[in-house]
Amino acid sequence: MSGRLYVVGVGPGDPELMTLKAARVLGAASVVAFFAKAGRRGHARTVADAHLPPSVEDLRFDYPFTTEVSLQDPRYLAEMGAFYQVCAVRLSARLEQGGDVALVCEGDPFFYGSAMYLYDRLTGRHPIEVIPGVTGMSGCWSQAGAPMTHGDDVLSVVPGTLDEDALADRLLRCDAAVIMKVGSNLAKIGRALTRAGLADRAVYVERGAMAGERILPFAELDGASAPYFSLVLVPGRRGPR
Amino acid sequence: MSGRLYVVGVGPGDPELMTLKAARVLGAASVVAFFAKAGRRGHARTVADAHLPPSVEDLRFDYPFTTEVSLQDPRYLAEMGAFYQVCAVRLSARLEQGGDVALVCEGDPFFYGSAMYLYDRLTGRHPIEVIPGVTGMSGCWSQAGAPMTHGDDVLSVVPGTLDEDALADRLLRCDAAVIMKVGSNLAKIGRALTRAGLADRAVYVERGAMAGERILPFAELDGASAPYFSLVLVPGRRGPR
Repeated sequence: MSGRLYVVGVGPGDPELMTLKAARVLGAASVVAFFAKAGRRGHARTVADAHLPPSVEDLRFDYPFTTEVSLQDPRYLAEMGAFYQVCAVRLSARLEQGGDVALVCEGDPFFYGSAMYLYDRLTGRHPIEVIPGVTGMSGCWSQAGAPMTHGDDVLSVVPGTLDEDALADRLLRCDAAVIMKVGSNLAKIGRALTRAGLADRAVYVERGAMAGERILPFAELDGASAPYFSLVLVPGRRGPR
Repeated sequence: MSGRLYVVGVGPGDPELMTLKAARVLGAASVVAFFAKAGRRGHARTVADAHLPPSVEDLRFDYPFTTEVSLQDPRYLAEMGAFYQVCAVRLSARLEQGGDVALVCEGDPFFYGSAMYLYDRLTGRHPIEVIPGVTGMSGCWSQAGAPMTHGDDVLSVVPGTLDEDALADRLLRCDAAVIMKVGSNLAKIGRALTRAGLADRAVYVERGAMAGERILPFAELDGASAPYFSLVLVPGRRGPR
């Protein structure tokens, strides 16, 4: 009899920003599955650590790329598809041995999470429960003291990997924005924010709700790139109404 | 000496989807502040219930409107502004008496939360800490088994209160969408989804992650309106890649 797969969002980084349900499920898991960069411990696995039983078995999925490769690169898409397929087969085999598996993810699983690629492949074949988590962006705007969306504001979440024209267009057509995947796209993001007239309102957050947190106005930022755990917030309309 | 204000997101409705930090802060609160419709218990207050100490003091803010009034109506804006001002004065006075106050909010406080209007008025005047929560939309898409954003998808969060042209335009310019504030806007939302070619992909979620949950394809929905706790999801690109 197949074990149950729990896809568990562990939240933005602070282990206390995990849900009560996530902590309960981790405490009872036979196996913890997670993605990690080669040679690293795995961020979600580290956040989950304190809640896992000492006897827990690790099922580790090492990403095939260690550096940032364009999502548009056909080689990237093909290799990642094959990678997720192998992970899904391993996860499925482990579930068939019995015992519940907790697949841990940063933030919320269905919001830009790698776990979705395994969910897409295993749904209908094993019992699966998805436990939502606090997103990285919620952790960041709370730490930045930046209320994002009031009343009828439209919020757009835009990957910084888009080209400059597409970025500027999306930014022009919303009231509030979150730009994810900043990394090496920082200079391009700055140009798109300027074209949309938003450069003065934008806030840069690095490692929000984690050790080494850094929050500053985007306009005060220098340097051409940013680390992976960084994003840009453009809060909506502000002030008392 | 002023008490500390904690602005606490209690998550999408299931009390177990609250964070460990929210539960800890609620357990130590002297006062719990909350918004409620006249005659109702207050949804966030109800979710928080099990974690509050028996001695906790209630600070209740009754909304001045019990029916849905257009956010564009000048009367609405003026009355709500005056209402939030009165709430902020009451909250400030209570903080000055000492003891920590937990202002509880559904979902995530800085994401369409009423608490932002008090935060905007009190920031810099009292020590404030914002505790992010799982959003209602994360609760809904997890329950619906609908992974939302893969790779470079753009997600737009759009209030259903926008006019039909604006709604259709925003829906055309994103890969995934969440339409909030469905209520009496249901028929208009249906027309905008059809114009954007998204009616077949859309999923309707009512009371997601709460008692009485109802999830079905938008196309199968009949009736002209929906309850307050409902939204429409348009998941991004699907399937294994």
